[in-house]
Amino acid sequence: MEFLEGVIKKETKEISDLLDKSLVGKEIKINGAVHNIRNMGEVAFIILRKREGLFQAVWNEGVSDFKINEIKEADTVEITGILQENEKAPNGIELHAKTLKFLSKASEEMLPLPIGKWKLKTSLEAKLNYRPISLRNIRERAKFRIQEGITRGFRDFLYNQGFTEIHTPKIGAKGAEGGANMFTLEYFHKHAILAQSPQFYKQMMVGVFDRVFETAPVFRAEKHNTKRHLNEYTSLDFEMGYIDSFEDIMAMETGFLQYTMDLLAKDYQKELNLLNITLPNVSKIPQVKFADIKVKISEKYGHKTRNPFDLEPEEEVLISRYAKEEWDCDFVFVTHYPSKKRPVYAMDCQEDPTYTESFDLLYKGMEVTTGGQRIHDYEKLLAKFEARGMDTEGIDGYLDAFKYGMPPHGGVGIGLERLTMKLCDEDNVRETTLFPRDLSRLEP
Amino acid sequence: MEFLEGVIKKETKEISDLLDKSLVGKEIKINGAVHNIRNMGEVAFIILRKREGLFQAVWNEGVSDFKINEIKEADTVEITGILQENEKAPNGIELHAKTLKFLSKASEEMLPLPIGKWKLKTSLEAKLNYRPISLRNIRERAKFRIQEGITRGFRDFLYNQGFTEIHTPKIGAKGAEGGANMFTLEYFHKHAILAQSPQFYKQMMVGVFDRVFETAPVFRAEKHNTKRHLNEYTSLDFEMGYIDSFEDIMAMETGFLQYTMDLLAKDYQKELNLLNITLPNVSKIPQVKFADIKVKISEKYGHKTRNPFDLEPEEEVLISRYAKEEWDCDFVFVTHYPSKKRPVYAMDCQEDPTYTESFDLLYKGMEVTTGGQRIHDYEKLLAKFEARGMDTEGIDGYLDAFKYGMPPHGGVGIGLERLTMKLCDEDNVRETTLFPRDLSRLEP
Repeated sequence: MEFLEGVIKKETKEISDLLDKSLVGKEIKINGAVHNIRNMGEVAFIILRKREGLFQAVWNEGVSDFKINEIKEADTVEITGILQENEKAPNGIELHAKTLKFLSKASEEMLPLPIGKWKLKTSLEAKLNYRPISLRNIRERAKFRIQEGITRGFRDFLYNQGFTEIHTPKIGAKGAEGGANMFTLEYFHKHAILAQSPQFYKQMMVGVFDRVFETAPVFRAEKHNTKRHLNEYTSLDFEMGYIDSFEDIMAMETGFLQYTMDLLAKDYQKELNLLNITLPNVSKIPQVKFADIKVKISEKYGHKTRNPFDLEPEEEVLISRYAKEEWDCDFVFVTHYPSKKRPVYAMDCQEDPTYTESFDLLYKGMEVTTGGQRIHDYEKLLAKFEARGMDTEGIDGYLDAFKYGMPPHGGVGIGLERLTMKLCDEDNVRETTLFPRDLSRLEP
Repeated sequence: MEFLEGVIKKETKEISDLLDKSLVGKEIKINGAVHNIRNMGEVAFIILRKREGLFQAVWNEGVSDFKINEIKEADTVEITGILQENEKAPNGIELHAKTLKFLSKASEEMLPLPIGKWKLKTSLEAKLNYRPISLRNIRERAKFRIQEGITRGFRDFLYNQGFTEIHTPKIGAKGAEGGANMFTLEYFHKHAILAQSPQFYKQMMVGVFDRVFETAPVFRAEKHNTKRHLNEYTSLDFEMGYIDSFEDIMAMETGFLQYTMDLLAKDYQKELNLLNITLPNVSKIPQVKFADIKVKISEKYGHKTRNPFDLEPEEEVLISRYAKEEWDCDFVFVTHYPSKKRPVYAMDCQEDPTYTESFDLLYKGMEVTTGGQRIHDYEKLLAKFEARGMDTEGIDGYLDAFKYGMPPHGGVGIGLERLTMKLCDEDNVRETTLFPRDLSRLEP
């Protein structure tokens, strides 16, 4: 009888196995995709792309028992040879190739994009059309390793803070935040929608676990075709009970950012270097009131606001500029947004109910988080639905949670792709989305 | 200027702050939801539900400065008093209450379910109708802590094994595995579908990161209303390149199970105890061929197979019984499924192409994973699409990945809710789904 007993250790080496140089002078096996070939005649450099980075194998006429022109970019191979030190090679090591085995052969056609170059200088459109190819560029793929680090930091930090991870349904009967901007579908002869946020579900789960989070896709049928909008994106959501005010939520998000920047510095240094990213200082993040900062940027930059109830993109840019100039901060919390522009469940301020106990987090000129305290009192919640003329049909489950007791609570939704975009200093959110979905793009 | 500088430390205590008993005899504050009240007249026990478990506060006439009948189940409160030891109380500690502050008051209506009971003896239907309430039962919610542990184990193990986490789109133009069983929606005047698996995307990303995983919802428009089917579920997917055979994939999954059982034993012992779960032994998992095990269960149990190309649910039960009796294993890999019942991208066996280099993992009588090696050769992939009469329109991106070189690879999709269900010894997958979606259920 044959049994599986755990991960099978491979004979082939990974780059991290070789960094201590203990195998220098020894024969090793290594595999990878042929990323680039530089043929100098009697010598050729075969650059392999591996998950941990690039690795240089050296073909030498007479020493290597295969022909260099048999190999081409995008083949995947296993090479056996002697490991040697070489200052000029990636990580200071290279393999002097003896034998080569093909694992797979690519088509004879030229790659549609020059992915072997350091920077992939091609249009965003071309990069997205050839996504599985363009991402093979080392710097392109590094952005998504950074994105992994952010998601990982989010989860690990929240686990440590006593949060429980939840999985809430994306198909539902009603939307969490009113009727607009939702994709609709037919669900076994019923009308259904795709969730534009896990809002109602995570609130209900605060009544169960006190603190919950979710990292999952959300869907917005918005007809914006801007550099900052996607119709499907990954939302990092948390919701926490037993708060004293929404300051607890901003503090928790600050903690997440601190933990995550530390994690990136520790485990993703290679990718930070590849992309030339300087991590932002998040030891302290200023909070300014919506109404006050509108005045301040008008005074300092002469900006005239056109919309007293929300921030225009230009205002977000100016507020971030102000935060950078005045407090040397890349992040800034803008608090107390007008009630009119916030969803029904937002808690209004007691002193002045035209404002809410809410905030946005701006990062380098763009909103990356919306958060705030929620109404937890059943009667108040019903009253606000009624005041807005909103129907409560189909959300009995949500209302039940409040009827049968909910602690004071609040939370945030963070746009993962936007946060990655700003961290990587990209100017279009599609640059940091694996397979973007927008008005015109549904594939690949 | 006010700044946020990280998580705000609270004066109120969590259960874990009190376990070392260093605060016994001291005045502390604690908050929570009133889970249960046992009123004995001059003394009453107020059981608080907190995220880490239950906590007992004691009301004493004359000592506590509030009236016990002012409080009711589902209120959320903050209680101040002296911490005392009491063997009979949860964790051997209790609070002798002095003062009480209401954080929120529940409605006067009785709770629809007796969630304060040890076992929630009510119908599944009632539990699902009142999901935000039923999950407040301590044992009900514990199942979803176990589920968190599984997801966490999956990710942490794979991070350690060099996998990159990806987020692939759930809205797409075409399905990954053929046309049936997909929800369709209108996407800005185009037809779109909801992804029934991240299969094509994770394969494309093997060409970029070598090893990838995703934990995300998938959508199946199947008209099965059984105990094991959901129309939306969480799929734990990984895909890995540079494999020698699909045995590498089974070995990786075995490694995941080993890591996860260790993690559950270490960090989720409280929940395992609550649910009386004995973790399965996963030190070795047998692998048996599809064709062979059909014969074995027919010989041993007299079962007559009706479908030579797939396993019927009864056969899965018998195979698991066989694995338990013969090898004392709760898990068993069934390998080499007939090509006819496997998707187009499955790699056929070289010796006999009517079978595939694939497997299912059965756990206590039910399939919890489907996996296998995939075709990595462009021409072979095209040929198989053609042989099956399948259209390749709209999947150019997928095919490009192969045209421009893909390593030998394979992977798995694991049903999170099913795995949780079997681990918790539940008999309906809805018991371990927060908010199930099925033919008849679209809310809450």
